[in-house]
Amino acid sequence: MALSSNHLLGLYDIPVEDIRLILDTAKTFREVLERQIKKVPTLQGQTVLNLFFEASTRTRLSFELAEKRLSADTINFSKSGSSVQKGETFKDTVNNILSMKVDIIVVRHESAGVPQFLTRFTEAKIINAGDGRHEHPTQALLDIYSIEEKLGDLKGKKVCIVGDIAHSRVALSNIFALNKLGAKVSVCGPLTMIPLEIQKFGVKVYHNIDKAISENDVLNVLRIQLEREAGFSIPNLREYREYFGINTERIEKNNKDILILHPGPINRGIELSSDVADGPYQIILDQVTNGVAIRMAILYLLGTKN
Amino acid sequence: MALSSNHLLGLYDIPVEDIRLILDTAKTFREVLERQIKKVPTLQGQTVLNLFFEASTRTRLSFELAEKRLSADTINFSKSGSSVQKGETFKDTVNNILSMKVDIIVVRHESAGVPQFLTRFTEAKIINAGDGRHEHPTQALLDIYSIEEKLGDLKGKKVCIVGDIAHSRVALSNIFALNKLGAKVSVCGPLTMIPLEIQKFGVKVYHNIDKAISENDVLNVLRIQLEREAGFSIPNLREYREYFGINTERIEKNNKDILILHPGPINRGIELSSDVADGPYQIILDQVTNGVAIRMAILYLLGTKN
Amino acid sequence: MALSSNHLLGLYDIPVEDIRLILDTAKTFREVLERQIKKVPTLQGQTVLNLFFEASTRTRLSFELAEKRLSADTINFSKSGSSVQKGETFKDTVNNILSMKVDIIVVRHESAGVPQFLTRFTEAKIINAGDGRHEHPTQALLDIYSIEEKLGDLKGKKVCIVGDIAHSRVALSNIFALNKLGAKVSVCGPLTMIPLEIQKFGVKVYHNIDKAISENDVLNVLRIQLEREAGFSIPNLREYREYFGINTERIEKNNKDILILHPGPINRGIELSSDVADGPYQIILDQVTNGVAIRMAILYLLGTKN
Repeated sequence: MALSSNHLLGLYDIPVEDIRLILDTAKTFREVLERQIKKVPTLQGQTVLNLFFEASTRTRLSFELAEKRLSADTINFSKSGSSVQKGETFKDTVNNILSMKVDIIVVRHESAGVPQFLTRFTEAKIINAGDGRHEHPTQALLDIYSIEEKLGDLKGKKVCIVGDIAHSRVALSNIFALNKLGAKVSVCGPLTMIPLEIQKFGVKVYHNIDKAISENDVLNVLRIQLEREAGFSIPNLREYREYFGINTERIEKNNKDILILHPGPINRGIELSSDVADGPYQIILDQVTNGVAIRMAILYLLGTKN
Repeated sequence: MALSSNHLLGLYDIPVEDIRLILDTAKTFREVLERQIKKVPTLQGQTVLNLFFEASTRTRLSFELAEKRLSADTINFSKSGSSVQKGETFKDTVNNILSMKVDIIVVRHESAGVPQFLTRFTEAKIINAGDGRHEHPTQALLDIYSIEEKLGDLKGKKVCIVGDIAHSRVALSNIFALNKLGAKVSVCGPLTMIPLEIQKFGVKVYHNIDKAISENDVLNVLRIQLEREAGFSIPNLREYREYFGINTERIEKNNKDILILHPGPINRGIELSSDVADGPYQIILDQVTNGVAIRMAILYLLGTKN
Repeated sequence: MALSSNHLLGLYDIPVEDIRLILDTAKTFREVLERQIKKVPTLQGQTVLNLFFEASTRTRLSFELAEKRLSADTINFSKSGSSVQKGETFKDTVNNILSMKVDIIVVRHESAGVPQFLTRFTEAKIINAGDGRHEHPTQALLDIYSIEEKLGDLKGKKVCIVGDIAHSRVALSNIFALNKLGAKVSVCGPLTMIPLEIQKFGVKVYHNIDKAISENDVLNVLRIQLEREAGFSIPNLREYREYFGINTERIEKNNKDILILHPGPINRGIELSSDVADGPYQIILDQVTNGVAIRMAILYLLGTKN
């Protein structure tokens, strides 16, 4: 079995069979991560370039670990200290790097469409590690893997994404993939954080978090991005916490079977109370562990594809 | 033979047999460093995370070299460009990284106790690469290795640590280990740089550098940390140099058999004159070479322990 | 066959046989880069330190790729975050690093002579990746490789270097090597950018770009370094572009057989118009690909030399 594309640009365009293949392959690598020796020789001799124009800890580390465990060689590019600062155009920077002939490129960029753009200039395989507000497919895949690990097949399961949907690439990638896998998807947040067009994706909209908790099996709670646009979308953080923050009281009042996900980093005391972030309903650190397995699966499937 | 612990957190708590085992193992790796091919396959398949919350050149490079020479895979985390800057709590950052399942973590942090804290959250083996003013065990071990390389068994040897003892993790780790190995330990510095409680460790106190030189076999001279608290402990650098700076004249007047160590980076013209820093009494660059061997020994002993 | 020196410090001092050996060896590695598996085990067990005191994207990435494709272990040092910032002298920083016993050092520094200086302190092999305004030998070698790939043997070929010759290490290394290989070398630029002594290297001087285009086979167009001294050498960029900027009109009027090189990063619209930078006369991205092969050749020849 092979993926239908040479790249993983997003989850909107890919067939459900590809999603299923990645999830199944990740299961094998998840088992490798429990072994004493977590390394396999699959990508020996291949070079992976981590091309991060946007700062990142966990996604970059997770990819780098996945690459090394597949025995690939890794090269890191980050924006700071690069010739981007000498006024070189983006296309020139990229063409230069591509001319060095790497096999796989993992790219994160603040502009939507950059991973797609790269495919026009290189024979390398491209993996989107987050592009603007567009998609973050590996995050959505690890979220889905983590849900299925607890609840089994997603078909018919009710999943609600909570927070600033309008500015979130994580939300979009999750909606696309959850729809394809037959889940019933909803979103929850203040009016200013829910884009009007969201309903065309067949997504139910909540503005009441208690109702969202009581009517769903899973809540995927997004980070309120204090460092970005959140300030313009909500009057203040205290109000956000009061109306949409998730705490143990709210969970126990509405639905003790709920499963809580969060992509991190958490704003403790804002979107999640600390007792929820550390409590029995969440699977946040499982998501992180599964993330390495998901990325190993994608790198493996692309790296061994002709 | 195996270490008694799964971690190297400090030298206060560990049995003298562990110190001796590390020193003896380092001897083997020190010989490897003289070979054409300096690499051994011992840690193949294991991943070491270098988790540096505090800037460092030589300690990070030394560990990274040691790891690669043992054929481990290495991943580097540094504070800048990380989600620590997005307001994530330290515990959340760490838990995230730990969930990626690395085998060994080398950690440096400005707060005492962080390496110990990590052991509660992970099955990974933890190596302290410096925590606040607490301990810096690999530095002390390489100091001791370097002394024994020149003078033989430390038992009965007189070793004086010179400088800002009150703010030094290097001093503390040295004192603990030197005591265990039977050396006679003293410290020398201005009143404001010697903590009152130091004598409970059985340490003699000098305030006169000439006396310290004449009565000891070894001087381990600390860096005056201009970028930290030194400004508060001494009236000015000129005065420090006049009363405690070590120059050739002072050595030749008092004790021509003295051995001078310094952990680097040196403030030339302050704690050491340039002729001493480059002269026949010091073994500063031997310390650096031995540091790689010491770190290989610790990584090897922990990495192969069940 | 072996190089005559243990280092590659510049092209002024080395015999033409060494240049030819590097170019021939690079041809083999250029073929390796077209293979599915681009990795060879030649430098397994050796450690290469990339010692970059000056920021760099493409040169550092190119070297790092070359090193990994030869199966060497790589360690990166960059100035930021290092103890250089704690006031340590350059010599102490370097001596420390050298005491860790690496096999090959790739060094870039803003001061001329630093690579030469390093050879006095270490048994490691030194490769100059750019030192001040002195030399940048690997760039010149990849330029020459790229010209010969298109035009065959350089003997008798006319090559003109265009731009700020006075501040360019790329220009100097090119002049030295082109002369040795029998090319006819010229330079072109405004009076303020051509050093008076340049003619002692047997170099013809143009101040008219149209004439330079019409009388040469190759133009190696340098970057106007906006971030450095360019501001002092020319009245303004618009005037530079008008008198020395290369555009399609100028090429087609004067010489449709010209070959255009540029070391990057390009200032589009200044030294090269965008249509030339992307057009049929230039081989800019070939230069980048060939750069990896040239660096593999040099690392291989030095790394396997006794």
